[in-house]
Amino acid sequence: MNQNLLSSQPYKGARDFYPEDMRIRNYIFSTWRKVCELYGFDEYDFPILENLEVFASKSGEEIVGTQLFSFVDKGDRKVAIRPELTPSTVRMIAGRYDQLPKPIKWFMIGNNWRFEKPQKGRGREFYQLEANIFGVPEIEADFEIFSMIIDIMSAFGANESMYRIYFSDRRLISALLNDYLQLDDNKQFVARRLMDKRKKVTEQEFALMLTAAGLTKTQAESIEGFMQCKFESLSKIIPSDILATNNGYSNVQKLEKLLKKFDLMKYCEFDPAIIRGFDYSDGLVYEVFDKNPENRRSMFGGERFDRLINIYGKYDLAATGFAMGDITLQEFLIGWNLLPELATKTQVVVTRFPNSTAQLEEYTQKIARDLRKAEITVDLYTTGDKLEKQLKYADKKGIPFVIIAGDDEMQRNVVKLKNLKTKEQKEVTVTDIEKELRN
Amino acid sequence: MNQNLLSSQPYKGARDFYPEDMRIRNYIFSTWRKVCELYGFDEYDFPILENLEVFASKSGEEIVGTQLFSFVDKGDRKVAIRPELTPSTVRMIAGRYDQLPKPIKWFMIGNNWRFEKPQKGRGREFYQLEANIFGVPEIEADFEIFSMIIDIMSAFGANESMYRIYFSDRRLISALLNDYLQLDDNKQFVARRLMDKRKKVTEQEFALMLTAAGLTKTQAESIEGFMQCKFESLSKIIPSDILATNNGYSNVQKLEKLLKKFDLMKYCEFDPAIIRGFDYSDGLVYEVFDKNPENRRSMFGGERFDRLINIYGKYDLAATGFAMGDITLQEFLIGWNLLPELATKTQVVVTRFPNSTAQLEEYTQKIARDLRKAEITVDLYTTGDKLEKQLKYADKKGIPFVIIAGDDEMQRNVVKLKNLKTKEQKEVTVTDIEKELRN
Repeated sequence: MNQNLLSSQPYKGARDFYPEDMRIRNYIFSTWRKVCELYGFDEYDFPILENLEVFASKSGEEIVGTQLFSFVDKGDRKVAIRPELTPSTVRMIAGRYDQLPKPIKWFMIGNNWRFEKPQKGRGREFYQLEANIFGVPEIEADFEIFSMIIDIMSAFGANESMYRIYFSDRRLISALLNDYLQLDDNKQFVARRLMDKRKKVTEQEFALMLTAAGLTKTQAESIEGFMQCKFESLSKIIPSDILATNNGYSNVQKLEKLLKKFDLMKYCEFDPAIIRGFDYSDGLVYEVFDKNPENRRSMFGGERFDRLINIYGKYDLAATGFAMGDITLQEFLIGWNLLPELATKTQVVVTRFPNSTAQLEEYTQKIARDLRKAEITVDLYTTGDKLEKQLKYADKKGIPFVIIAGDDEMQRNVVKLKNLKTKEQKEVTVTDIEKELRN
Repeated sequence: MNQNLLSSQPYKGARDFYPEDMRIRNYIFSTWRKVCELYGFDEYDFPILENLEVFASKSGEEIVGTQLFSFVDKGDRKVAIRPELTPSTVRMIAGRYDQLPKPIKWFMIGNNWRFEKPQKGRGREFYQLEANIFGVPEIEADFEIFSMIIDIMSAFGANESMYRIYFSDRRLISALLNDYLQLDDNKQFVARRLMDKRKKVTEQEFALMLTAAGLTKTQAESIEGFMQCKFESLSKIIPSDILATNNGYSNVQKLEKLLKKFDLMKYCEFDPAIIRGFDYSDGLVYEVFDKNPENRRSMFGGERFDRLINIYGKYDLAATGFAMGDITLQEFLIGWNLLPELATKTQVVVTRFPNSTAQLEEYTQKIARDLRKAEITVDLYTTGDKLEKQLKYADKKGIPFVIIAGDDEMQRNVVKLKNLKTKEQKEVTVTDIEKELRN
């Protein structure tokens, strides 16, 4: 048998969560959940496996073409493990469009899979918080989402020096590429793709790529100017009469006003270079950047996707929201030293006296049972190790208290209660243990 | 576009969790989690996708042969979506065998997939609570597990009239088939498989199947007698000298003693017909049955699997635990009318007065923000519907309170607070809203 031993490693690029990792995950998830619930969002979920068509039509082409975990099931159906959470969310809403009270405010926390080369901050699986508001075309919904993002970040201890929400509106890009520069559809498509990657290349490289795609030098200069400009200077790039009738322009104006009113603008900044790679983005778009000089990069983002639901039928349902990944968030928290010490939830180990009689064993079992009834978390030792090993076990696990009882203690209906942090030990009657542990 | 509309249904046999379903799931998961933590168990998790080999060697043949969702990834690696949680749990323990403080008490809640014909109580995906103790060969660990199962069932409101834990020990079957009847390995294997399905066939059918497998009529009668007998009468089937040296026999004896001591035997019953289909079961085995006359069946089970870890190397690590599925549990709770009403967590809707000025809108936005700071869950209405529609929305969602403020209320720094259950409405100053909602 030994020749054919299995590997004890998880699937490449995927994570095992040992208890100390799980505590971090639970901390992140419960913080997410708490803020979403404060905003009146309802939690939902859907299967990790979907019919392939759910992703084939609308997820970005990079995801579907090369990153999808897809296969044919035993019933000859084409299926895929979800690479993101938005398409199935929309599927669920279409499934009960008539019955659901609107507006719909939903959040979920779910695992996604993409076939990528594993690297720092990017595995083949990751969790995301997905949160959206459906049925509100007004910018006030996006403002709610921005507030929620900021409250989530604050709940993790992050302040305005640590991250920034950069936002723009896709319709400003249409104003530039379509209404002003009047590029054909194909050139617009290529230009948007290049603009989305603008921050990864130099100004020269960007200009070269645009002209290689058939744009004139002047057009390329306009695009570069657009990507560098502040909101106030947009009219120097795009003629004012085009901006005056552009919904993206008025949208951003109103959002900035609300953000300033509630002193949230310090977390935010207009940035025309924000594009988002998803085909279904169609209004406000935003990305949240880590400002850590050692790890400056986009952590997560969101957008309007008012028309995505139309792949399921003729619905009228505005949509806006974001998805926030656990791996990048955890790196952000570590980078800014915001990850708290997370101890085990177990409060006390009830030891098993070596060579216990059945009677002594039952004495300690009863103590454990009674403490649990009082909602104290108890690890009852059930094997015959030396006391010293049991104390080391509790210490290594970070469990703060240990209860020891031998025949002598049993006779007098007491226990020894040891505090592993202070090393103090005292004798306590059985009825007082709960009170002592609560102090 | 309309000709090619996508289906809004989830993948066949898998479940969408709309908010009302998600509340049930969260209730089940949090009850599981709470009791496991009371017992000092640490939560862990691992990827839903595993290298195929993890399951190929040790899961039951039915699962691996016909039910596994397996495929080849884009890197030519054979992978599978997990059909159960035990094999990967053991993989993780082998992966850090030397570092982990022992005993190891771990629980997780995870999703499994099996390609089955969807039917009542069985889909293609289900969640399980998996809880195990590693490193304790003593029956006291199994007693802890039994107590934990009973405490979980009690936490859901179930009493001894509603379910029963039937238990046996696989070594008793060895005593019967090997030591006493002296069947060859092949016949033992077939007999065990048939015994596992005994409750699904009549006595006659069972006898016929055993003799068809090459057993004599007398052997078949012994097996039938074994499967019907009480623990006290085992020695009428298997000679006492065989039982006297059988570890399964002494094990069951000790377990019964502990169960009686703590008045838990009323939930439990020895039943030699309990076998378990998993190849890795190798000591105590148990299955928990719903006693509902309309749905009498096995809900979940557990076992000793002391040797499973050996597929990863030469380890010495006793193991015992169970896995409890969410679908069967939910049916049990519904069948016994134990599922509570689970309301939304949102406490109040802050309405948006139709045709609000920017100033009035900011007034209500600030109220929502301040309540959230006070940890009140607030659904802020952000679209321009009629007030009546907003009240209906809150009512349909089961949100108990509504806040209404127009220009008049804003001038006086008050709001109307409406209780949707009592239909009462009163005027409250902004600073008193929190207090009123907490009452």
